[in-house]
Amino acid sequence: MASSPSGKPVLYSYFRSSCSWRVRIALALKGITYDQVPVNLLKDGGQQLAAEFQVVNPMQQVPALKIDGITLSQSLAIIEYLEETRPNPRLLPQDQKKRAQVRMISDHIVSGIQPLQNLAVLQRVGEKKLEWAQHYITNGFQALEQILKNTAGRYCVGDEVSMADLCLVPQVYNAERYKVDLAPYPTITRINKTLLELEAFQVSHPTKQPDTPAELRA
Amino acid sequence: MASSPSGKPVLYSYFRSSCSWRVRIALALKGITYDQVPVNLLKDGGQQLAAEFQVVNPMQQVPALKIDGITLSQSLAIIEYLEETRPNPRLLPQDQKKRAQVRMISDHIVSGIQPLQNLAVLQRVGEKKLEWAQHYITNGFQALEQILKNTAGRYCVGDEVSMADLCLVPQVYNAERYKVDLAPYPTITRINKTLLELEAFQVSHPTKQPDTPAELRA
Repeated sequence: MASSPSGKPVLYSYFRSSCSWRVRIALALKGITYDQVPVNLLKDGGQQLAAEFQVVNPMQQVPALKIDGITLSQSLAIIEYLEETRPNPRLLPQDQKKRAQVRMISDHIVSGIQPLQNLAVLQRVGEKKLEWAQHYITNGFQALEQILKNTAGRYCVGDEVSMADLCLVPQVYNAERYKVDLAPYPTITRINKTLLELEAFQVSHPTKQPDTPAELRA
Repeated sequence: MASSPSGKPVLYSYFRSSCSWRVRIALALKGITYDQVPVNLLKDGGQQLAAEFQVVNPMQQVPALKIDGITLSQSLAIIEYLEETRPNPRLLPQDQKKRAQVRMISDHIVSGIQPLQNLAVLQRVGEKKLEWAQHYITNGFQALEQILKNTAGRYCVGDEVSMADLCLVPQVYNAERYKVDLAPYPTITRINKTLLELEAFQVSHPTKQPDTPAELRA
């Protein structure tokens, strides 16, 4: 658990992990420079399972962030910590009800969709994994589209980029990987497209990470 | 979406839903009186799927809480809202790093364990559902036990009851339902037992709700 020689925060990340991407967007939006340590979820039977990584994060998952002398995991817990310690620009609205909506949408994606279609679960599901992933993403997006009709402005909640947007874009990326038809979700699709025009979403993109394989780089 | 005639918050809940229980504990700890509308996840093919409930919560899940003129879902989003609007007694520590630990443990349970062993997923898994549930709870508890060794005092993080504790107790209850051997998790077991002595955890218990069937009442 040595600190970064540079003194900067260290992000343990995998280029294609949607949970890692959420945190990379937050770091980019807040202008926090960091060192990145790639953890390959496929190589060596999953480097997140190695004893040396278990010392960093007993949950054996990415992302994990070493910052301010502690190591945090769980993407939303990390983002909430960044929000409390580096509040500008804010990722939670000032209005309490809007904050609640941002957290509701974030939790819907982070607890209600992503865990059911992550790599480890799909490996366990076996041959029906594509159908399984599509089922849970579709179910989740049907609800999300309804919710966004009430909350969205330019972005998921009103016109400010929020934590919910940091969850949305990586989840849409996963939906595309699993060939989910996005036509029934015009609000999701519109917001995703708008967000992808922002620099913080581009520099943090899975196609542009230090561990992105050459053939997937953009 | 009529308000409660009493003007009190309305909780849509199912006695055995661990996500509902988290919110019931928060309401009890903060001394918030509320009306409860039972939503039976088994009856009528799942009352959460009915059109009239979809108007309340497009996510078709319990819990949902009508409060202050809005309807919120997702247990942690609800608890964070209660914390911001009814801060006493607090469920997040004052110290920012401890707050981060509370959220990390909460998310680990809420995103990393519970979604993989909830009723709808197990119905989809089919005949291997007990093995499936045990696998994910065991995996999650192994990590949680390690984390708690660093964070716990009397409760999950230090000596104050926090949001993490509201997640822990219902998850241990699920583990017991699915016959997970808890012997390897002395810290989890010890904290769970201590918490169950508190009144807020008792009055909110699945065996004591308006919709608890007579044969399960305690």
